[in-house]
Amino acid sequence: MEMNLESIFNPKSVAIIGASREPNKVGHAIVKNFIDSGFAGKIYPINPNAREIIGLKCYPSVSAVKGKIDCAIFAVPAKFVPSALRECGENGVKGAVIISGGFSEVGNVEGEKQIEEIARKYGIAVIGPNCLGVLNPSSRVDSVFLPVYKMGRPHVGGVSFMSQSGAVGGCILDLAARAGLGVSKFVSYGNASVIDETMLLEYLGNDEKTKIIVCYVEGVKRGREFLEAAKKVTVKKPVIMIKAGISVGGAAAAKSHTAALAGSSEAYKALFKQAKIIEAETLMELFYFSKIFDQPLPKGKRIGIMTNGGGYGVLAADAAEQTGLKLAELSSDTKKKLVEKLPNYVTVRNPLDLVGDADSKRYELALDALLEDENVDVIIVITLFQTVGLDSNVVNAIIKASDERKKPIIIVATGGEYTDVHCRILDSYGVPTYHSPNAAMKALKHAAGYAEYLERKEKRK
Amino acid sequence: MEMNLESIFNPKSVAIIGASREPNKVGHAIVKNFIDSGFAGKIYPINPNAREIIGLKCYPSVSAVKGKIDCAIFAVPAKFVPSALRECGENGVKGAVIISGGFSEVGNVEGEKQIEEIARKYGIAVIGPNCLGVLNPSSRVDSVFLPVYKMGRPHVGGVSFMSQSGAVGGCILDLAARAGLGVSKFVSYGNASVIDETMLLEYLGNDEKTKIIVCYVEGVKRGREFLEAAKKVTVKKPVIMIKAGISVGGAAAAKSHTAALAGSSEAYKALFKQAKIIEAETLMELFYFSKIFDQPLPKGKRIGIMTNGGGYGVLAADAAEQTGLKLAELSSDTKKKLVEKLPNYVTVRNPLDLVGDADSKRYELALDALLEDENVDVIIVITLFQTVGLDSNVVNAIIKASDERKKPIIIVATGGEYTDVHCRILDSYGVPTYHSPNAAMKALKHAAGYAEYLERKEKRK
Repeated sequence: MEMNLESIFNPKSVAIIGASREPNKVGHAIVKNFIDSGFAGKIYPINPNAREIIGLKCYPSVSAVKGKIDCAIFAVPAKFVPSALRECGENGVKGAVIISGGFSEVGNVEGEKQIEEIARKYGIAVIGPNCLGVLNPSSRVDSVFLPVYKMGRPHVGGVSFMSQSGAVGGCILDLAARAGLGVSKFVSYGNASVIDETMLLEYLGNDEKTKIIVCYVEGVKRGREFLEAAKKVTVKKPVIMIKAGISVGGAAAAKSHTAALAGSSEAYKALFKQAKIIEAETLMELFYFSKIFDQPLPKGKRIGIMTNGGGYGVLAADAAEQTGLKLAELSSDTKKKLVEKLPNYVTVRNPLDLVGDADSKRYELALDALLEDENVDVIIVITLFQTVGLDSNVVNAIIKASDERKKPIIIVATGGEYTDVHCRILDSYGVPTYHSPNAAMKALKHAAGYAEYLERKEKRK
Repeated sequence: MEMNLESIFNPKSVAIIGASREPNKVGHAIVKNFIDSGFAGKIYPINPNAREIIGLKCYPSVSAVKGKIDCAIFAVPAKFVPSALRECGENGVKGAVIISGGFSEVGNVEGEKQIEEIARKYGIAVIGPNCLGVLNPSSRVDSVFLPVYKMGRPHVGGVSFMSQSGAVGGCILDLAARAGLGVSKFVSYGNASVIDETMLLEYLGNDEKTKIIVCYVEGVKRGREFLEAAKKVTVKKPVIMIKAGISVGGAAAAKSHTAALAGSSEAYKALFKQAKIIEAETLMELFYFSKIFDQPLPKGKRIGIMTNGGGYGVLAADAAEQTGLKLAELSSDTKKKLVEKLPNYVTVRNPLDLVGDADSKRYELALDALLEDENVDVIIVITLFQTVGLDSNVVNAIIKASDERKKPIIIVATGGEYTDVHCRILDSYGVPTYHSPNAAMKALKHAAGYAEYLERKEKRK
């Protein structure tokens, strides 16, 4: 039976089952999020004991709603879920997000089975149970029950993120919001009783607004199908994944968390390799790797580095070689141009140390030269915002240089609040920023590897 | 000849040679920093063309100052440095921080030789040339010429940091200030013409206020002496080091940066091993590793994990095993206590998933139990501040639990601004926070390794 994930990610009307008037309840937070996010469709709070919630008319049940409901969000105790889901089915609801926990992850296998049976009978696409919800900044869908002041919401962008763990999902969303990274769709899918990782991967793979897919997975239910789906997706867009539960202790923890069977680490390594999935080893890598794909794919591995701090140039050169990238040999044209235009105390080489008193003009010159240089595939711009000479204009210069997406431009900047403000602007324009040369180079290595993979695929055709 | 580093780090009076009335000049920023930091001693701006700078009387030369000058800070072009340094020597100045660049790093070997000769003749401890300056939050010494709004100043603490690169130094200071990490002494030593890394290491090794020494090094001038000094220091306090210029490209960049001869990567690996120096491979590790030593050293490798996000428990268990740490087997007493007191939907195991609705009381219970449990050497507290149930009280509970320093308590929290605020409070109390389980476990591995080293040393006595 065809399941309709559109009703989950782009509903025109939602019912919140278990809507509550108590501000600290999940069923309250979700109603408020839909109102605050500016959801354009209908919102139907469902609660037999309330007449109004945050100014919205409340309904005793889904059957009492006259209009069509595309998606129902469940924030009621587990024992009430099956009957309410059946009622949804009988009223033609095609999407359900079951936030409620208390199913197979605590041994209530029977309850979860009921959900599955009802979903299949009525053709309801069910996300969850035991999940954090769904977010789609472009359609203003926000069933994530974490308050906005605690977890920021990212703006519209190209990264879609499917996470088995709600906690991991929430943290990454919060990081993305803080960093200015744009998100297309987010789904925390919990126990994956009906809609599993394979279906989500296929949906996001076909979704035009999704440019990059990021996954946190504890266990894959249908390994072979997932592999086949992943193979088809990765020729269209990059898939980045972290597999949790790869240790003995971790696997046991995963079982009690989302009832996931973690599987062997080797099996997953093989899966990643066969499907050309990019493996992140840590949460921060998941985040770092996804940012790099906002830039064009590199045509090669020859990088040009510019910096206003000599030490950072040294570290960047080290990190480049360690990750298998190459320092570009600047063309004689570039060298000539730079010697002419830069102050005489700047030594023209790669890494190009623009020296501590560099201003945005000097960066602009260097950016122009390296953009033109055919020996340079990627430009790493190290901007230490702490110096007296560097002001916010350098951000404009970088955004302008990156605007045509001629070649990837990647920023390294370490620091506190002043630095963060500038990094956020750059990230919001799809110019990825990294706290350290090492993080940038690791991400870049994966972008270069993915570019090579696509090229090989292309040649075989 | 004995060089007096006290005049550098704890001067009672300073002269700023090249003090300027122009706000965007280095010689201005340094005068302002000394005023703003609340430096208790005398400040003598030196400039023949000004009568007053920021309200302070200005002197035409060092000779014109009647009072004693402990330390002179140089912010004049390279060509003026030797004569001004000689004047300092003739007037009994025993410390000099030469910010000015334009010496051996650009081929002016002669100028640097002059500095050396003058320093030895008059017994002046010279830091630099080509450096960022010196910071001592406790004596309010601040010759770092980066504006406070761009680079935060850390509060008083136990980490001392010597950096050959000013840029790297400034960024780490900025990170430390933002994160709430306390610093004892910071010195950017640039070309190390007179005071080199070995002397600084010895000084910081003997400095009672320094609990942890962190170093960024491009090249060590006197390898054997450094090794001997390091061996003596590491039995007293941990030394964490990043060696830059370990690649071919990086070594070449280091040479043009601080005229450093990078040496072979293998030689440094051997040095680190022999002297039990903790090697950081990235800038962020330098920062992460230094934080861990604010906690007591672990008595063993058995860790207890608590979390309000199941996925993070899984990732933490993975990271623990990958770094050679062990998941503790909770004692039957602990299990009994926890089963009694925690809600029935919490499964008592390690990692202990306190579940998404955990509040600070639940954390307090778990903290108390794991502090008492003799099977647990280290406690990892994962606090995902995004949840509705967790409020700022958990910070108080953790600080209180850590107050007696019974065993190391380490925090993992990922997120945006709300999370950061809480992490900053924890770090300022010496409870280290990490963005990811992986970063925490890596740091912990080094703390455990260092503890074992000290124990072996102790037994041999």
